[in-house]
Amino acid sequence: MLESAEIGHAISKAAFTRQEGRLREALLNAQFDLAQAKAHPVLMIITGVEGGGRSETANKLTEWMDPRHIRVTAFGERSCEELARPYVWRYWRALPPRGRIGIFMNAWYTEMVSARLAGRLDGTRFEFYLQETRAYERMLVDEGVVLLKFWIHLSKDGLRERLANLAKDGRHTKRELKQDRQRADAYVKLRPVWEEMLRETSTSEAPWTVVEGTDEHYRNLTVGKVLLDTLKTVNADVAPTPRTRAHSAGPAPTVVDNVALIRKLDLSQKISRTDYDGELVKWQRRLAELTRTKRFRDHSLVLAFEGADAAGKGGAIRRVTSALDARQYVTVPIAAPTDEEKSYPYLWRFWRNVPPRGGITIFDRTWYGRVLVERVEGFCSEYDWHRAYEEINQFEEQLVESGGVVCKFWLQISKAEQYRRFKAREKTSFKRFKITPEDWRNRGKWGAYEHAVADMVDRTSTELAPWTLVEAEDKYFARIKVLKTVVKALDAAMA
Amino acid sequence: MLESAEIGHAISKAAFTRQEGRLREALLNAQFDLAQAKAHPVLMIITGVEGGGRSETANKLTEWMDPRHIRVTAFGERSCEELARPYVWRYWRALPPRGRIGIFMNAWYTEMVSARLAGRLDGTRFEFYLQETRAYERMLVDEGVVLLKFWIHLSKDGLRERLANLAKDGRHTKRELKQDRQRADAYVKLRPVWEEMLRETSTSEAPWTVVEGTDEHYRNLTVGKVLLDTLKTVNADVAPTPRTRAHSAGPAPTVVDNVALIRKLDLSQKISRTDYDGELVKWQRRLAELTRTKRFRDHSLVLAFEGADAAGKGGAIRRVTSALDARQYVTVPIAAPTDEEKSYPYLWRFWRNVPPRGGITIFDRTWYGRVLVERVEGFCSEYDWHRAYEEINQFEEQLVESGGVVCKFWLQISKAEQYRRFKAREKTSFKRFKITPEDWRNRGKWGAYEHAVADMVDRTSTELAPWTLVEAEDKYFARIKVLKTVVKALDAAMA
Repeated sequence: MLESAEIGHAISKAAFTRQEGRLREALLNAQFDLAQAKAHPVLMIITGVEGGGRSETANKLTEWMDPRHIRVTAFGERSCEELARPYVWRYWRALPPRGRIGIFMNAWYTEMVSARLAGRLDGTRFEFYLQETRAYERMLVDEGVVLLKFWIHLSKDGLRERLANLAKDGRHTKRELKQDRQRADAYVKLRPVWEEMLRETSTSEAPWTVVEGTDEHYRNLTVGKVLLDTLKTVNADVAPTPRTRAHSAGPAPTVVDNVALIRKLDLSQKISRTDYDGELVKWQRRLAELTRTKRFRDHSLVLAFEGADAAGKGGAIRRVTSALDARQYVTVPIAAPTDEEKSYPYLWRFWRNVPPRGGITIFDRTWYGRVLVERVEGFCSEYDWHRAYEEINQFEEQLVESGGVVCKFWLQISKAEQYRRFKAREKTSFKRFKITPEDWRNRGKWGAYEHAVADMVDRTSTELAPWTLVEAEDKYFARIKVLKTVVKALDAAMA
Repeated sequence: MLESAEIGHAISKAAFTRQEGRLREALLNAQFDLAQAKAHPVLMIITGVEGGGRSETANKLTEWMDPRHIRVTAFGERSCEELARPYVWRYWRALPPRGRIGIFMNAWYTEMVSARLAGRLDGTRFEFYLQETRAYERMLVDEGVVLLKFWIHLSKDGLRERLANLAKDGRHTKRELKQDRQRADAYVKLRPVWEEMLRETSTSEAPWTVVEGTDEHYRNLTVGKVLLDTLKTVNADVAPTPRTRAHSAGPAPTVVDNVALIRKLDLSQKISRTDYDGELVKWQRRLAELTRTKRFRDHSLVLAFEGADAAGKGGAIRRVTSALDARQYVTVPIAAPTDEEKSYPYLWRFWRNVPPRGGITIFDRTWYGRVLVERVEGFCSEYDWHRAYEEINQFEEQLVESGGVVCKFWLQISKAEQYRRFKAREKTSFKRFKITPEDWRNRGKWGAYEHAVADMVDRTSTELAPWTLVEAEDKYFARIKVLKTVVKALDAAMA
């Protein structure tokens, strides 16, 4: 892929000046339309050979365009807050909202290459990350992100020449120049790694544009024109992305067996009040101890609660939190997204609440909304909820990879029990338990939810982040099962 | 203030149990109403004598209430991201939105006391911070925050007793017990500092509730009841806070002299194209150098741009940004707040964009919207924009105190020049320059804005963060003046 960017592309200063004015005007107008429509975020990744002019390109783009709607992020040393969270957290954090342009310098690419070269990643692991990257980028694109990836290239001679020029202009210190020379020496080793990376991550959704960096006029004009063409296409697409792309997710899952999983739960399981009191104290104490140990500071805990209305999520959560130090955990209720949250991919609002090491986040309803309520109510297309299984698995893997312990609970009650609880709630004095017409309406879709739950568990119960189906007909039984599961998961992770 | 919390308040276990159920139910209902109304955030500060049971109190409250709408924040060691920003940044960051309850452990109080005791703050400086705190809390309350401050107290004997009990139950290490003893020894020295602090920060808006911590039942019930009473009052107040409190800001400013300040600007000042080109290169180069020096990493730069429509803010900003490294700065356009931003005090959305040391934020329109457009259009009450002057001065002082360089620009053109620019823009091909009916409407309020600007400059041009009035009739002149001002401010700060 790189040869065509080593042939010495160049544009004269005069030709550049002729074209620059028109390009700038067109870019500004396209940027304005993008900002007005607020339909898509644009994410440009600029990376490539060191010394190729990556940051000069970014500076030129912000100079051409309206700096108020564009943001450049350099991902240098991780801050302490970034180090305490999963690898990709800082990219989620910097993601541009709809209508804006974000430029990510190097993004997730440079780190991968360095790790490979230093031997911290072997060939297989490197391939795995390339695959991960592909899946991650596909998700961004599916979520409406317009993704542009630029590799600013220099041939080996081109790099030598640039370094010689830098040495002449005297702006680099001796130490920097020494580093530069070392980099030039690494070129031969790096090149095949780059080749593999570019090949493996050049997809139809997010292809690489390789741009020769030697001549700044050529480089800047090329990047600018590709951006302009893309913006024009995006802006012409008046309707929101169709999201109807043919998907290869295979036929819809065979439903019968899956649902049996839910229906066969033994909801008659019970625990007496006396046993409950004893067990509660016992498991809460264990949980309190585990989350206060020094070892826990290398981990984090993510609890995901799902279940039918009135299944007892709130009660189970309170039995967990009362064992925790209030300074250590956060409970996040998931309701309709705010307008800020709506301007990002759907996983964004969960990423923003991912706990740091030593922290705990409890989600009351979760990212599974996509494959539950959004599927059942038709809030997203079939393609969207189909792809969500894989995206969610990736999300949870990223949590676990950084020391997270992920427990997911589905609280199951019978339809008859739900009816009893609704009726009982209508008489309660706790306002938060008031039953709304919406609750009754949801109840009407019991069967559709059963199928959605069955598919969800089937496709997202992974070894790293398994589902726990909780027989919740008896509240005591459910609460103890939840607490015990959390304790055992922590025990296993911290062993 | 402390004596009444040293007399040995206690409640029997039986009495506690009798009252707890009712209190919990009432708290839950009140919390539900608060969340539904989304009119006010509740901020509880819990601090006091170490060992008095502060975190136990917080835990009890979250146990009683719905943990999904309450969040406890402990402010321990500052993270690297917090260290790189002003002192109060982390409090802004943790502020609860409307409808929710935030519990701040110790908040800004413990640090102040420690610094005073260690001699890092002398008496005068301590008094200054207490005053600052008062102003800060008043602002929060004026912005609709319901502020509750609890001092959990122990007498000296009470503290001794608690420490003895802790030593017995074996949960503390030897080192911790040694620390505990040291703390007990410091009691005598600390007490007068606490007394002063409580006295000076107990205001009608945000009074302290001093609670004896010796008996946990008494302590928890007392805090719970005060919270409940407050929630009930807040929830009963169906209409949003009236914000009509009589203010002591004195009579409205005498207008004539102030406006002269604006009208007397010599708008005929010009610079030729040739001189402009030379000056531009010169000052941009200086700016590029200064922001790339090592010394700049101890500072940050905040640029605030205000001016009439078409005064040339965008052009001036671009001349600044093109001298900067795109990875170093962020430009923040201020338009209507998002619904998330609306659920916080008005300064919140500026705080979230405050640059870290070594960073630059450029605001295109600013927090001065409060005393400009909001005043002129009547979007806020007279009381609100009156108090804003003082609040803004405090905000900017906090920026400067942590190494920030703050430059504020008002770009002034004549009404005739604005007309010419509007007309010219109607013919331009740059879409972002399209003139809207709103622009013409704003133009109709020229006089009102003149008064607002004059008052603003008069009241917020401080030594730490002075206004620069920019004669912007000639764009070249304006841009050079802006650049020069920034360079000189940086020079002065970094000298």
